[in-house]
Amino acid sequence: MVVADLGVASVLEQHPDLKNRKVAMGTQNMAKGPAMTKEEAIRSIEVGVTLVEEELSKGADILGTGDMGIGNTTASSAITAAMTGADVGTVTGRGTGIDDKGWEKKVKVIQKALNLNRPDPKDAMDVLSKVGGFEIGGIAGVILAGARYRIPVVIDGFISGAAALIATSLSPQVKPYLIASHQSTEEGHRIILDRLGLKPLLNLGLRLGEGTGAALGISLVEASLKILHEMATFSEAGVSEKEDPCQK
Amino acid sequence: MVVADLGVASVLEQHPDLKNRKVAMGTQNMAKGPAMTKEEAIRSIEVGVTLVEEELSKGADILGTGDMGIGNTTASSAITAAMTGADVGTVTGRGTGIDDKGWEKKVKVIQKALNLNRPDPKDAMDVLSKVGGFEIGGIAGVILAGARYRIPVVIDGFISGAAALIATSLSPQVKPYLIASHQSTEEGHRIILDRLGLKPLLNLGLRLGEGTGAALGISLVEASLKILHEMATFSEAGVSEKEDPCQK
Repeated sequence: MVVADLGVASVLEQHPDLKNRKVAMGTQNMAKGPAMTKEEAIRSIEVGVTLVEEELSKGADILGTGDMGIGNTTASSAITAAMTGADVGTVTGRGTGIDDKGWEKKVKVIQKALNLNRPDPKDAMDVLSKVGGFEIGGIAGVILAGARYRIPVVIDGFISGAAALIATSLSPQVKPYLIASHQSTEEGHRIILDRLGLKPLLNLGLRLGEGTGAALGISLVEASLKILHEMATFSEAGVSEKEDPCQK
Repeated sequence: MVVADLGVASVLEQHPDLKNRKVAMGTQNMAKGPAMTKEEAIRSIEVGVTLVEEELSKGADILGTGDMGIGNTTASSAITAAMTGADVGTVTGRGTGIDDKGWEKKVKVIQKALNLNRPDPKDAMDVLSKVGGFEIGGIAGVILAGARYRIPVVIDGFISGAAALIATSLSPQVKPYLIASHQSTEEGHRIILDRLGLKPLLNLGLRLGEGTGAALGISLVEASLKILHEMATFSEAGVSEKEDPCQK
């Protein structure tokens, strides 16, 4: 497991398992202007690519994405609305569990950010820089790097899905490398999976993030490989296929 | 993993990992009379109970069911039709992959067996003995024993589902101990899960049996417990919940 700080808006205590890859001390308020500069958007993606390359040298052969961040369902809803053309109200959920009033405000802020910044749906870097987050850029980088090095990327929930929208828009060849671990309760996530043509392995009403779904997904992928490679076929195992009473 | 022979209709080679618990040398042809006697039906359930009790002494705290058997989707369809009242055609699938002609014959044989034996849907032992199989009785015993000793039972596909119909009919208190690992492609399995009020963890079009789904299900249950017990809450981890831009 790799934990990287791409831009928490405070100085974090050092920890041997935490990689300091701050792009900046937090993004800017997208309701007042672009969340980040183009250069920062590029750098956030490059951080994701580099994180993967470091793990590849240690033998990683499958990737799972995940995120921690407060407010990042807001950015993900903005990206989803911008890139899919779906209504902001439709792609905006309850995040950590806000109430009706909080939800209405969230929709309003996202709509305001989109009206103000006018991200170009055909230019993923424009969308990422105007209404994205550094962790979303980083995950997009992880996805791009996975495809670049031809290893599967198991994506987690809504935030990873928004990153997948960015990554597949930058390079549609990425798609075959994506595996959707689960479908979260955020309606925006379902819209993303539909758009990407991905069928989630799990649909358990998870609203956790932090890569929990991806971790479950990786273990399912590993189990599937075991079934495909290690399970005997009927003929290998010498099982008769002719004893069904209906065949007699 | 425990592998037990409850009644393969031939003498199997001895193997240290194979428990010989033959109830009889195969069931009888249900299209010509009852598949087994009442005594054999009871014995098959007792075998399942004993298998569980042997594992409990070794520390088992969760059970998963599975089966191997040719022709046992036929018996499972018969049980499902008998106990739920669903049409034989609806609850009969392709099993190992029979063609249209094979399927029509399968439906006809099951209908004939039900017409001939007239199993009483309110008497699960009657259904099991007339159109069941020893492995289905055995799995019903495993389920009953799991509930008896208050440990969860992760059920596999269609055959385990038919056994769950038998077990829950014998004792409805069993239900809360059941976890459905997956929904197989057999339509009869969906009908069983609906009847039992169980939502499958996975819906991946598996048609494997042999406990593959249950094994996947057990690992999901273990992961869920880890999430519930070991993951920090926002307040435990000192995560601020107030920084969503929409809350500012």
